[in-house]
Amino acid sequence: MGKVYLVGAGPGAADLLTVRAARLLGQADVLFHDALVDDEVLALAPQARHVAVGKRCGQLSTVQQFINRQLIDAARRYSCVVRLKGGDPMLFGRAQEEIAALADAGIEVEAVPGISAAFGASSALGLSLTRRGLSRSVVFLTPAVGSGERPHAWADAARGADTVVLYMASRQAEVIAQGLMATGMPPGRPAVLVENASLPGQRVLPTTLGQLPDTARELGGGPALIMVGDIYAGLLGQAAGGLDEESLRTAAA
Amino acid sequence: MGKVYLVGAGPGAADLLTVRAARLLGQADVLFHDALVDDEVLALAPQARHVAVGKRCGQLSTVQQFINRQLIDAARRYSCVVRLKGGDPMLFGRAQEEIAALADAGIEVEAVPGISAAFGASSALGLSLTRRGLSRSVVFLTPAVGSGERPHAWADAARGADTVVLYMASRQAEVIAQGLMATGMPPGRPAVLVENASLPGQRVLPTTLGQLPDTARELGGGPALIMVGDIYAGLLGQAAGGLDEESLRTAAA
Repeated sequence: MGKVYLVGAGPGAADLLTVRAARLLGQADVLFHDALVDDEVLALAPQARHVAVGKRCGQLSTVQQFINRQLIDAARRYSCVVRLKGGDPMLFGRAQEEIAALADAGIEVEAVPGISAAFGASSALGLSLTRRGLSRSVVFLTPAVGSGERPHAWADAARGADTVVLYMASRQAEVIAQGLMATGMPPGRPAVLVENASLPGQRVLPTTLGQLPDTARELGGGPALIMVGDIYAGLLGQAAGGLDEESLRTAAA
Repeated sequence: MGKVYLVGAGPGAADLLTVRAARLLGQADVLFHDALVDDEVLALAPQARHVAVGKRCGQLSTVQQFINRQLIDAARRYSCVVRLKGGDPMLFGRAQEEIAALADAGIEVEAVPGISAAFGASSALGLSLTRRGLSRSVVFLTPAVGSGERPHAWADAARGADTVVLYMASRQAEVIAQGLMATGMPPGRPAVLVENASLPGQRVLPTTLGQLPDTARELGGGPALIMVGDIYAGLLGQAAGGLDEESLRTAAA
């Protein structure tokens, strides 16, 4: 019986994997990875059989069950099975369903953390998620609506938090802006969209809550994060169409 | 003029640093580190001058100004200055004050993310911070009270979030339990204390919000995190006095 490692791939750049994750990639017999994992990361496991289990935003439960099944089968054939997930495996990754399915099948599982997108983006921006006098709480959420729920129920979690980070959000900018404003946030609240954080194609688009849907139309197809809070006020009024490294440094100072 | 890297040391274990962080430690001329950083991490920079800037919980602003001053002086004398912070530098680390002071002095700064304690603990527990049907939002906060504030104002951020993670919290378990219950959370809400996440001395203490102050008395002096939410219900009723690896696996399944 093999062992399955649920490994965080980090925000994008290969050298933002943990040392433990990089070592496991080099030892893997088979590597299951999301569609969003960068090629340079996959290149750390040249010896492994690579299997793309391409979930992007769809996340149908049939797809998840198929992934669970593939992981169980692989652990019965191989000694070291790596399941690589973008960011950290324990945040918005449906890891618990994979862990439960593997445990039910009697297969050992170990999770290895990764840098979640919010941290990759914050380091790239040079802007801390918390700041004395401005932000002492951060909430991570996703704008999913459960069946039978009010349309903006997900936004309740953002009500009291100083900084709000929205994952899997770039195509739902309209809903997000409406939902957050419905909690009483003003349309002028600063926000920033970060696409491809830590990768060469990184884009940083400062905006406000009210302008968020318009700004989101400028995004390409890469993974993007929406961050909202007064700590992003310094980014406003910077170069339109995205910030380059020099203007980011000026804005963070 | 040298460059200063604000580097996340991760939750504790040396192989949970990022590859980039480990490389920078090996290149550092001088290394400024918090008191909580593990010796095995510091051993990655044998060539560097090590300077402990031992903030634990005190965080007096005079201390912060002294650290800022030391970083500026070091960047004027050395080429590669690493400022190593426990977890991720951009969460509860007062990074912005260091970045601003360095920028004011005309010194280049780059942040390198690290695994924040909540992610280290979640992987160690085998329990995801989010879970379909149980948790789709996570808030990270610290129970600090600003001057002139209501005693439990910090707890407002936890009101709508499904999972609540409290940093720098182990000595304030009484205040935390009171503050969260004042928002309407029931005393039976599951919680877990994780001390020394990812290190050999890791301890996992499942409890409830009502029992939190009693359970916190069992903690040693290591860095500890308090996590609260229904996703921790499976840990309750497990072995008293902390969970070993086997019972963690059972509880997560």
